[in-house]
Amino acid sequence: MDELITHTNCKTVANGTTSKVITCKAAVVYGPGEALVIEKIMVDPPKEMEVRIKILFTSVCHSDLGVWLGTNEAERAYPRILGHEASGIVESTGEGVTDIEAGDYVIPIFHGECGECIFCKSAITNMCAKFGINPMKRVMESDGKCRFWSKDKNPIFHFFNTSTFSEYTVVDSACVVKIDPKLFPLNKMALLSCCISTGVGAVWNTANVKPGSTVAVFGLGSVGFAVVEGARARAAANIIGIDINPDKLAKDVLREAFLSTHQGWGLTVLVGVHSTPRLLPLHPMELFYGRKLVGSTFGDFKGKSQLPHFAKDCISAGVKLDEFITHELPLEKINEAFQLLIDGKSLRCLIHF
Amino acid sequence: MDELITHTNCKTVANGTTSKVITCKAAVVYGPGEALVIEKIMVDPPKEMEVRIKILFTSVCHSDLGVWLGTNEAERAYPRILGHEASGIVESTGEGVTDIEAGDYVIPIFHGECGECIFCKSAITNMCAKFGINPMKRVMESDGKCRFWSKDKNPIFHFFNTSTFSEYTVVDSACVVKIDPKLFPLNKMALLSCCISTGVGAVWNTANVKPGSTVAVFGLGSVGFAVVEGARARAAANIIGIDINPDKLAKDVLREAFLSTHQGWGLTVLVGVHSTPRLLPLHPMELFYGRKLVGSTFGDFKGKSQLPHFAKDCISAGVKLDEFITHELPLEKINEAFQLLIDGKSLRCLIHF
Ligand SMILES: NC(=O)c1ccc[n+]([C@@H]2O[C@H](COP(=O)([O-])OP(=O)(O)OC[C@H]3O[C@@H](n4cnc5c(N)ncnc54)[C@H](O)[C@@H]3O)[C@@H](O)[C@H]2O)c1
Ligand SMILES: NC(=O)c1ccc[n+]([C@@H]2O[C@H](COP(=O)([O-])OP(=O)(O)OC[C@H]3O[C@@H](n4cnc5c(N)ncnc54)[C@H](O)[C@@H]3O)[C@@H](O)[C@H]2O)c1
Ligand SMILES: [Zn+2]
Ligand SMILES: [Zn+2]
Ligand SMILES: [Zn+2]
Ligand SMILES: [Zn+2]
Repeated sequence: MDELITHTNCKTVANGTTSKVITCKAAVVYGPGEALVIEKIMVDPPKEMEVRIKILFTSVCHSDLGVWLGTNEAERAYPRILGHEASGIVESTGEGVTDIEAGDYVIPIFHGECGECIFCKSAITNMCAKFGINPMKRVMESDGKCRFWSKDKNPIFHFFNTSTFSEYTVVDSACVVKIDPKLFPLNKMALLSCCISTGVGAVWNTANVKPGSTVAVFGLGSVGFAVVEGARARAAANIIGIDINPDKLAKDVLREAFLSTHQGWGLTVLVGVHSTPRLLPLHPMELFYGRKLVGSTFGDFKGKSQLPHFAKDCISAGVKLDEFITHELPLEKINEAFQLLIDGKSLRCLIHF
Repeated sequence: MDELITHTNCKTVANGTTSKVITCKAAVVYGPGEALVIEKIMVDPPKEMEVRIKILFTSVCHSDLGVWLGTNEAERAYPRILGHEASGIVESTGEGVTDIEAGDYVIPIFHGECGECIFCKSAITNMCAKFGINPMKRVMESDGKCRFWSKDKNPIFHFFNTSTFSEYTVVDSACVVKIDPKLFPLNKMALLSCCISTGVGAVWNTANVKPGSTVAVFGLGSVGFAVVEGARARAAANIIGIDINPDKLAKDVLREAFLSTHQGWGLTVLVGVHSTPRLLPLHPMELFYGRKLVGSTFGDFKGKSQLPHFAKDCISAGVKLDEFITHELPLEKINEAFQLLIDGKSLRCLIHF
């Protein structure tokens, strides 16, 4: 597959579309757990500080599944375009965008970086007051409106600052990062926009795993395998993978993971999304044995400023992306891709247009 | 008070008692929440690696209250001698004890340091596999027996490695530390064996508060005020104290404290003991905003090796111990001391013999 996906044959930006509404294909969700509908939609040109991207590859991540199922009612919004793990090429940029231009190879980042808020200015967090991940957010930051429209002119909601299950999408420039296409072919590059950064970053940044450590990974999907790759690259002495019993509650595994760490210094990094209202299955006194529990979003990377460098680090550390893409389907078959992930039959199913 | 409690007039070690059973006064608990009974008990000589201490001052800490109430049934054991915040003078030492000798001024440490286990050998935790705090433990480590006996030869259980509500107590040498009596008068020295180390250490060690920080303290008892003193000494810019509503559940305050910290980097240090089975009132997703929650035992001090130095640091940092002892009573009135703490009328009530 790699040979086909070189940077040159992908550089097919639509021509003459700048400042115009683009009509293209997208997969739209109309209700919780309902099959996605492939339809023609209209995509507005990017406004100030926005970027319109032609998506080349996108894949289905468990976070898409979670919001699609709508378990957390506050996250429901329809019609909506899901998808956040992708790579693409910039079609056009809005006013004021200086770091990205048409023709650039980019990946969208669901956990953006405005560069100006109190969090972005701090070195100790990758949060962003404006563009941090927020599954409830459904409109563009600048004007509270949508850039997607149905043929009958009804707005279609955004998702995760990205909405990549569409041939074209509009994202804030804080949520898109230019990547050197010589580092990875663009199909694999898509993985850097979520599962690889999340999993490897949880090891390299959040846990800062040292050589010789023991790392246990609960849940061996793409994020879990990215954790394994990150731990391997950091020369962990033992890497233990644990997967399921599908009937088991996610909240139980969190407790088991926490208690399986070493007293005195064990660290549990929480990456998985918990959409039910169940509270932490831990007793306050269980925090008194030196075990720590922290959450990690987007691998604690400041996406815009650190991802280009991270891509290089992956190369030098020998992080292998080869095994993550287990399936490939056209957008028209995206419901099959969802089913493959639900059934645990795929790691990443790559969607092309 | 200070003038009276010099080191010289306190150096009254019982003479000729070495290797003999000592009969003395103690406050014994016979059932959950039952008034303590002052009675004559017998105290065995220290066995190998143990130390017998004549307690000069002891005070009532909320942790004594918690176990006295017996809310957590697993912690119940009767008859038992409570008490862990104290200062005293070594009466005699068992075989093999080399760092402490009769006549030394010491404080017992409820969270001991064997010096040899995996935790003691690690620089990143103050846990100890043998002598770490364990409210369920009720006998001596070496032989699983008691050193306290009632007049009719029934064993009386130990508590927190210390049992200081007795004129004489026997502790493992891992749970006693020699302190320079020139640094603090012995009444105040007692505070270093729990509330001061716990509170100041939570700030200096666990949170490692930097100058200019904002520190909020939920619960302004002695531990809370020690946190305030520690924060003041670290030049915190804002120190906010919060106390109660006595009807409010402790678990609610934990949630409020956690959510009151700053997104991105806020740290909640849990010091208070939660004896009910209620789980952490936090949702897993609430860990994704950069807020951290950690427990802190004994201020994260390795007691035996770090407390002598900490006592000096308190002097140089100007940590004030003056206001902590609000009451003083003889052992015979220890039930009044419990009531003062329950009613929130005392910080520390010092007990003398
Ligand atoms: N924090 C972040 O920034 C971030 C980013 C991406 C994904 N995520 C989350 O990470 C999680 C994993 O995503 P993914 O795309 O790799 O999912 P996936 O569906 O590909 O893999 C999940 C794996 O976990 C296993 N599993 C489920 N329950 C388990 C249990 N109780 N014990 C052990 N294993 C169990 C499944 O069998 C499966 O192999 C999801 O919750 C996703 O929403 C978080
Ligand atoms: N982790 C450790 O190593 C360690 C050591 C010593 C004490 N402790 C624990 O620390 C806690 C404090 O001990 P202390 O001796 O200072 O107790 P204390 O009784 O002197 O003080 C507790 C204070 O907390 C206040 N309080 C109670 N509920 C509150 C609420 N919901 N909101 C705000 N304030 C509230 C009370 O009014 C009181 O002023 C206890 O739980 C004790 O067991 C822990
Ligand atoms: Zn994802
Ligand atoms: Zn920002
Ligand atoms: Zn105490
Ligand atoms: Zn030890």
